[in-house]
Amino acid sequence: MIVEMRTGAAPAEIDDVVLKARSLGLDVQLNVGTDKTVVAILGSNTGQLATDVFAVLPGVESVTRIMKPYKLASRAFKAENTLVTVNGVEIGGKRVVVMAGPCAVENEEQLMKAARVVKEAGASVLRGGAFKPRTSPFSFQGLEKAGLDLLARAGKKWGMPVVTEVVDPHDIDMVSDSADILQIGSRNMQNFALLTAAGKSRHPVVLKRGFSCTVTEWLTAADYLLAGGNNQVILCERGIRTFEDSTRFSLDISSIPVIKRFSHLPVIVDPSHAAGHYSLVPAMAKAAVAAGADGLLIEVHPNPKEALVDGLQSLTPSDFARLMEELRAVAKSVGRYI
Amino acid sequence: MIVEMRTGAAPAEIDDVVLKARSLGLDVQLNVGTDKTVVAILGSNTGQLATDVFAVLPGVESVTRIMKPYKLASRAFKAENTLVTVNGVEIGGKRVVVMAGPCAVENEEQLMKAARVVKEAGASVLRGGAFKPRTSPFSFQGLEKAGLDLLARAGKKWGMPVVTEVVDPHDIDMVSDSADILQIGSRNMQNFALLTAAGKSRHPVVLKRGFSCTVTEWLTAADYLLAGGNNQVILCERGIRTFEDSTRFSLDISSIPVIKRFSHLPVIVDPSHAAGHYSLVPAMAKAAVAAGADGLLIEVHPNPKEALVDGLQSLTPSDFARLMEELRAVAKSVGRYI
Amino acid sequence: MIVEMRTGAAPAEIDDVVLKARSLGLDVQLNVGTDKTVVAILGSNTGQLATDVFAVLPGVESVTRIMKPYKLASRAFKAENTLVTVNGVEIGGKRVVVMAGPCAVENEEQLMKAARVVKEAGASVLRGGAFKPRTSPFSFQGLEKAGLDLLARAGKKWGMPVVTEVVDPHDIDMVSDSADILQIGSRNMQNFALLTAAGKSRHPVVLKRGFSCTVTEWLTAADYLLAGGNNQVILCERGIRTFEDSTRFSLDISSIPVIKRFSHLPVIVDPSHAAGHYSLVPAMAKAAVAAGADGLLIEVHPNPKEALVDGLQSLTPSDFARLMEELRAVAKSVGRYI
Amino acid sequence: MIVEMRTGAAPAEIDDVVLKARSLGLDVQLNVGTDKTVVAILGSNTGQLATDVFAVLPGVESVTRIMKPYKLASRAFKAENTLVTVNGVEIGGKRVVVMAGPCAVENEEQLMKAARVVKEAGASVLRGGAFKPRTSPFSFQGLEKAGLDLLARAGKKWGMPVVTEVVDPHDIDMVSDSADILQIGSRNMQNFALLTAAGKSRHPVVLKRGFSCTVTEWLTAADYLLAGGNNQVILCERGIRTFEDSTRFSLDISSIPVIKRFSHLPVIVDPSHAAGHYSLVPAMAKAAVAAGADGLLIEVHPNPKEALVDGLQSLTPSDFARLMEELRAVAKSVGRYI
Repeated sequence: MIVEMRTGAAPAEIDDVVLKARSLGLDVQLNVGTDKTVVAILGSNTGQLATDVFAVLPGVESVTRIMKPYKLASRAFKAENTLVTVNGVEIGGKRVVVMAGPCAVENEEQLMKAARVVKEAGASVLRGGAFKPRTSPFSFQGLEKAGLDLLARAGKKWGMPVVTEVVDPHDIDMVSDSADILQIGSRNMQNFALLTAAGKSRHPVVLKRGFSCTVTEWLTAADYLLAGGNNQVILCERGIRTFEDSTRFSLDISSIPVIKRFSHLPVIVDPSHAAGHYSLVPAMAKAAVAAGADGLLIEVHPNPKEALVDGLQSLTPSDFARLMEELRAVAKSVGRYI
Repeated sequence: MIVEMRTGAAPAEIDDVVLKARSLGLDVQLNVGTDKTVVAILGSNTGQLATDVFAVLPGVESVTRIMKPYKLASRAFKAENTLVTVNGVEIGGKRVVVMAGPCAVENEEQLMKAARVVKEAGASVLRGGAFKPRTSPFSFQGLEKAGLDLLARAGKKWGMPVVTEVVDPHDIDMVSDSADILQIGSRNMQNFALLTAAGKSRHPVVLKRGFSCTVTEWLTAADYLLAGGNNQVILCERGIRTFEDSTRFSLDISSIPVIKRFSHLPVIVDPSHAAGHYSLVPAMAKAAVAAGADGLLIEVHPNPKEALVDGLQSLTPSDFARLMEELRAVAKSVGRYI
Repeated sequence: MIVEMRTGAAPAEIDDVVLKARSLGLDVQLNVGTDKTVVAILGSNTGQLATDVFAVLPGVESVTRIMKPYKLASRAFKAENTLVTVNGVEIGGKRVVVMAGPCAVENEEQLMKAARVVKEAGASVLRGGAFKPRTSPFSFQGLEKAGLDLLARAGKKWGMPVVTEVVDPHDIDMVSDSADILQIGSRNMQNFALLTAAGKSRHPVVLKRGFSCTVTEWLTAADYLLAGGNNQVILCERGIRTFEDSTRFSLDISSIPVIKRFSHLPVIVDPSHAAGHYSLVPAMAKAAVAAGADGLLIEVHPNPKEALVDGLQSLTPSDFARLMEELRAVAKSVGRYI
Repeated sequence: MIVEMRTGAAPAEIDDVVLKARSLGLDVQLNVGTDKTVVAILGSNTGQLATDVFAVLPGVESVTRIMKPYKLASRAFKAENTLVTVNGVEIGGKRVVVMAGPCAVENEEQLMKAARVVKEAGASVLRGGAFKPRTSPFSFQGLEKAGLDLLARAGKKWGMPVVTEVVDPHDIDMVSDSADILQIGSRNMQNFALLTAAGKSRHPVVLKRGFSCTVTEWLTAADYLLAGGNNQVILCERGIRTFEDSTRFSLDISSIPVIKRFSHLPVIVDPSHAAGHYSLVPAMAKAAVAAGADGLLIEVHPNPKEALVDGLQSLTPSDFARLMEELRAVAKSVGRYI
């Protein structure tokens, strides 16, 4: 942590900073420049320390964090890539894992049909929402428990692990009974009660990026899961909120190489929610694979025109099958396979 | 809802849109232009309908919502201002209500001291956090139940209603036993499980704006509370996330007149979290009152240098007392009082 | 400048950083921690040095700027407030200066009428656009030279200095012949050719903030004017681009106290362009004065319904007169006058 | 254009909207719903009409644009892809065109070396800046005329067309004498004086996206060039400004399929400025090609450690050669070549 003193700060003010740091068990080095004094505060745990501790002291101009605030999710903490394995499917390895299925589970026929088409086209994991966080209380909220049961049956029938969202910390056991992978949605990325509960689970967790959270905050949220002992964490980029309005969100493609540089966790991409429109999904999915994503989360609906939720961003079965062919070529071009 | 057909859309495609709308019980009017056909879909509930319903149909270029997605929070639904009353304190009336206190309850001495100074300076409500949502799992998470007990005692002693944050839907009863007003924090504005639970409560709720949510989404989140039967809702603007980095968030001052135009709910402002620095709080608090805010939520700490959380944005007792004087003058200049 | 070396950086890599800094005439201090080495590079001109100079060196993890990149606009460079005086009107003093008039000069009748009503209501400076930067080439682009002539006549007749926008570096002399204050618009805040040319002028300049530029970049752009020898610079906050869509831009009210803290230059606020809707302008104008703005730039049109440009954000003469009354009260409440 | 009247708008108010539209030569259709009346205003030129024209009328709640504000750049105006040809290099065809070279021309040795390495690695166009728009007036501003001469010589020697930035409308002829393609930089995307001047030129123009401009605004800016008669326009995505701070800007990868859907113009990507760090450039470049970009603009410096500008985002010759190999594979996987 770097504490910049104001020009003309009194010696007693500088001393206070030094004493405060030492009282916290940290090393201190003074840099006395012609214009101002800069205090370097060193130690392996300064990343977890609030900058306010020093910023409130008189004579301090600014405090800059050098250490990242996350720890367990960092590559500095664990150099080798984390590999998440669920029912024989490896996420974070050479294979690009495609998770596909409908946004919401609507009924048995819809889900079974969706499961069949995504399996036949080469998807490895079945996705589907039973609890649907909706911006309006008047919208369809999902089949809940009945949806979980359908997912479990579809996954079993088609031999695919199932990923589904959990929205209440008290539902984790119930969801875990039916699903193989828990998903924490974008709006809950900083729902710390939910993160803490999921950290106690031993089910793999897909942690979607909050649509207005930085990569640093995202990795710090992952620390909640890791600190609880759950090291089966998969990050999922799904677009961030910007001023651009031709897409629902702006897919932050750069977050993939950034995550690869700073973290050991696998990262997948959800082009469907980022785009908001089926016609843009293929280009964004291919870009994600080319950029190094470890997997994709794609919405597929047997009949998007009848979808209860997010029909516009869902691919039809034939569009999905065609995309899978294209993705195989792109994956191969960057030394991977699907 | 306005459905714009593509140039050259087939008559059958236009028919499909019309049939879909009629099957949902909606009125339809066709506007046939030289370039393209525009279908107007009318009815009082189109605000709650997803645009996707029409956007997925072949031949559709775009779908634009005319009705707002929120209903119960709108001024169209209820023309007169909502007045929230708690223990004799009215929020939304002519008085500008100041809620003040420490970010986190740290111990009895700190809280009692803070309560005394804010009361003496003229605050009407005591704030303090017992459950602290923190970005890092390694940070201080609040005193939880013990903090609630201290808040209840301080509120009683100094004759002030107490507002505190609730983060888990299952904690609402426990928090309601100690606090007079429930706060739903920025990161939980779209935690729909929490909103649904708080909607069933009859305690007033301060609903903080998600730092990346639009005013429209904020009012739609308020609909969750109102739809549950809880009409004691106070909105709280606390800054949005932008590219500007000289403040922690950017206080969206315009949201105050926008809320006043489109909603009947009272709106207060939290300049402390928006600014992130005590030196900016007074100017922002005065601006909020001048813009028409119904109240303020301000962090005050007996000794910010020793604060466990957010010390940098907390005012000292003397700074707070001075600010209250200044606010009285500004309130008077816009026809209100504190 | 703080150079953080990677954990395990080689001594030769650290030496390279030190040598590079010394070759640039800078002081260096080494901070050797248990985890990593941090190199503090000190000197009064490091603000103008690109961080890349060190960031490209092997073994460097990150480089953080301590000194601000702007210099002449900073309060560290000049402690006392700058007062801009034009034809007897002082900007940056105790008086809050209101600049008002139509967005675009349309014809003689419109401008003369606008000038009269703003003068009678108490405005000190007349605004009006002769060159209109428009997003579409098919929109009205302004009266250009003829508009300048009208402005000069209206200013003379009503005894008000005139402010108008200049968009081409080669037009500065022509515009200066008619106008008393040059305006550099938001889209040109980083048009360095224009800034350089305006820096050579001795006419006061209103420098509008780029709608996506940080306060730091804004003050650095002001350095272009100041470095050219033109110290009559007035900053103008006019809203930044965010995700919020209920207003045209988001007025960054916090920028006012931030500018006051870090710079000596006067700052005014344009609530009209930020709001985009006349009904929001009064609340935002009052907030600006309460927050400490030195002036306002407000669009007033004799008949907004017939305006060629931006009619929706223009006040009518009667609304403007009423607002001026309200502003007088707010100004007084913060120790100023209009 | 869709004009939504307020609930309870008077018949005379509705009539006013209708009359206004008819006075502008537009078709009008009334949609009378149970809650409110919606007026559809039809005609092929409503995209160029300001929404304010109707929004200011009494009784109007909101006005929504259906037609896009750009016209000449739209695919509706010209269905087939535009192919820009310069000295035998086709941009917008099956080949992915790589433009590479140093950020700034520094001296003859540096430029000649850079030209050689990019040519040998397979680049088709040489890039280099002679006029450098810099945020600080104290930074290196480019070699200007001398830099142009060097570029012309390097392009000739290595048989590559040259692209370079122009910043002043009055420099277009001078720059055109040396360069084959004019570049309009991000900060000048809405410098309408410059766009108008470049529209009169017959040199191809690379129009970089303003870092805070929407795709719609970008295409509308392209209309300035096209309206002037210059149809040799190449769009360049270079990252937008968001809250994310781990990269310099956020590359908006989705803009590529969006542009392909709505416009006929070729689009290239500059991963160097978006990333701000050389280590992220390869992943982003590959993503751009996979997403369908028609070309890349990449910064390469013979010795980034000594670069005067933007060294951190420049690739070394060997890194660039390796990337070109990888890009060939990705281009092939999507049916293109380099």
